[in-house]
Amino acid sequence: MNKIEPRTLKGFRDFLPQEARKRQYVINTLKSVFESYGFEPLETPALEFEEILIGKYGAEGDKLMYRFEDNGQRRVALRYDQTVPTARVTAQYQNDLPFPFKRYQIQPVWRAENTQKGRFREFLQCDADIIGTQSPIADAEVIVLTAKALEKLGFTKYTITINDRSVFADIPNGAITIIDKLKKIGREGVIKELIEKGIATTTEEATSILRCIELKKPTETIKEIFSNLKKMGIAETNYSFSPTLARGLDYYTGLIFEIEIDGYTAGSVCGGGRYDDLIGMFAGRQIPAVGFAFGFDRMMEAMEQMQLFPTDLITTRVLVTIFSQELKNKSIEVAAQLRESNINTELYLDDNAKMEKQLKYADKKGIPYVVIIGPEEAAKNVVLLKDMKKREQKELSVEDLIHILTN
Amino acid sequence: MNKIEPRTLKGFRDFLPQEARKRQYVINTLKSVFESYGFEPLETPALEFEEILIGKYGAEGDKLMYRFEDNGQRRVALRYDQTVPTARVTAQYQNDLPFPFKRYQIQPVWRAENTQKGRFREFLQCDADIIGTQSPIADAEVIVLTAKALEKLGFTKYTITINDRSVFADIPNGAITIIDKLKKIGREGVIKELIEKGIATTTEEATSILRCIELKKPTETIKEIFSNLKKMGIAETNYSFSPTLARGLDYYTGLIFEIEIDGYTAGSVCGGGRYDDLIGMFAGRQIPAVGFAFGFDRMMEAMEQMQLFPTDLITTRVLVTIFSQELKNKSIEVAAQLRESNINTELYLDDNAKMEKQLKYADKKGIPYVVIIGPEEAAKNVVLLKDMKKREQKELSVEDLIHILTN
Repeated sequence: MNKIEPRTLKGFRDFLPQEARKRQYVINTLKSVFESYGFEPLETPALEFEEILIGKYGAEGDKLMYRFEDNGQRRVALRYDQTVPTARVTAQYQNDLPFPFKRYQIQPVWRAENTQKGRFREFLQCDADIIGTQSPIADAEVIVLTAKALEKLGFTKYTITINDRSVFADIPNGAITIIDKLKKIGREGVIKELIEKGIATTTEEATSILRCIELKKPTETIKEIFSNLKKMGIAETNYSFSPTLARGLDYYTGLIFEIEIDGYTAGSVCGGGRYDDLIGMFAGRQIPAVGFAFGFDRMMEAMEQMQLFPTDLITTRVLVTIFSQELKNKSIEVAAQLRESNINTELYLDDNAKMEKQLKYADKKGIPYVVIIGPEEAAKNVVLLKDMKKREQKELSVEDLIHILTN
Repeated sequence: MNKIEPRTLKGFRDFLPQEARKRQYVINTLKSVFESYGFEPLETPALEFEEILIGKYGAEGDKLMYRFEDNGQRRVALRYDQTVPTARVTAQYQNDLPFPFKRYQIQPVWRAENTQKGRFREFLQCDADIIGTQSPIADAEVIVLTAKALEKLGFTKYTITINDRSVFADIPNGAITIIDKLKKIGREGVIKELIEKGIATTTEEATSILRCIELKKPTETIKEIFSNLKKMGIAETNYSFSPTLARGLDYYTGLIFEIEIDGYTAGSVCGGGRYDDLIGMFAGRQIPAVGFAFGFDRMMEAMEQMQLFPTDLITTRVLVTIFSQELKNKSIEVAAQLRESNINTELYLDDNAKMEKQLKYADKKGIPYVVIIGPEEAAKNVVLLKDMKKREQKELSVEDLIHILTN
């Protein structure tokens, strides 16, 4: 058989152990924060009927969606976000779910993005949503939840930008997506594009459309959300009203917000808002909802940049080496005893590898301790424990070994 | 807009919180056992180039695989198992990985199975593999790992059936898959099918093919694996040699094994073996490997049947109700204080819901405690704590409340 070139599709990634452990750490941290606020896990399938997803994310979304015909000639699509599937779930099980339904979801989504922009085609989304209430307490809670999650991960400085979609009620539809780019392309850029797209005919007109939005005042809902945020313990310096924030997705109806981490310039790490009409498309009656999604990759990148990962994510505590074929059983026994004592133990799996190779293996994997049982140790019924960081070693009974490695 | 029927594709499932929590419990338990043996996490993409997956799982596998053309006219396929992607990863990063490479992987796979057989088209696989050594210590370790994982989940009685693919060396190829069905269709069935498929011409000939396999003795490798299993602490009553075990997948080359849970009759919950040639297809040089996959759904079903799930998987400890709009802030404050003390707390999110409705909500979600702050409590600066199971309630200071809920 010919050799098959081992390669991955552009925009798709393998996560080797070191990276996978970091991802696990962030996922577990987010879960623990979500659960501390009473959010419960939800999982939905990777594939949905195409009609469930199509038309919910704007024209761009339909274009980037992975869609195909399955073996049974059904039109299907890969999960594009977690909000639409959650809307579908809510409608489908509306008689069984407790409302408000507070769920979180951490699964991959797929988008055929232009990878040259440093975007991925498969990436993890981390969402939390509150479904079934229009209360501004819920709006505030999802914002607080994002803030607490960032703080738990170690981010101390972040900015929450908040707006209400209703401020756009009297603004021409096409203008909103252009004004959303204000931060990226500046006032000049927005004015230029408003004219190019035919929304304004003169610079004066374009300027006044922009000014009209910039002068908007916080709505009553925003004021109440702000008052709740304060009571819930979020510092006022961390959030502000921004009437030019628009957010692309079609389904938002009220509150919208984004979070940027100070010092991380690649873009917002979190976005969300209220979408009171989306679930109704599936449920046949209005079911209001509010939530957000974390951009997992950006968060990982920001954590890396700010060195927020713990240094001890390696879970293996000790490598038990095998000195020789004759002494193999001794090592197997000690490894079994360590595991019995709940110590994460790796047994070296070849009984004819040089000790040097085994030590290098421990070093490469970042395992902090190594146990050696040579003929001398076996005769004395002890083991040799090497501390790989301190480059020290000492002779110990198995009992003392367990004691040291447990602490 | 017309209502869109909320529905899922056949063979695809939503996991609502109660079920999702159980899945999380099993996943976390498996992870902890895998890590206690020094296995590290790996993640691979859902989509691969079609040529990576095709031809590795036999004709049946190619037929059941989800394959399509992506937006860039590339032939792609959804992950069908985790072994082939791991083989690809090993080849691709062979200069960076530490060998032996011990990885575990817990991700969904997709197969367009006939759902009438109670099979799913999207299901989770939980694998662990040791790559880069031919040592029978590794063969024994993967078997021990499965046994320890089952024990950690609470299964006390299970049967590990073990064979070596080399016993089939002198048996006609087509006979192997038929003999693999022995348990399902019995001796009569096997003999009948051997004739039907033209492998034997008479009942005598078919019977002698079957007898020839049944009389095989354990190979030297199997004997050494058995001796290691004993030393590693697996009771001899838990495993046995079975020369008629074949396992379908094309890529096995040596050890093969399956595990059944006593009392659970729907089939084996785990299967695995040695596949020394698969990685070579990608690597251009032989890299031996041994591993297994747990059938997650069967394991879940067996756990349900044997009532092995803990009863306290609900992570929310307390619901703080809102008595009235006037007293809303009091409840928001108490909820914030509880969360500060690391107590998983849900705040009821509507400030105009009847107390009865709020209590029913706690009941439906299985939250064990409820806090009420009415006008009397607010005046006295205390809270009312209801124990939902014992149907008891008492007045407490917030300090005492935190103390009780922490324990």
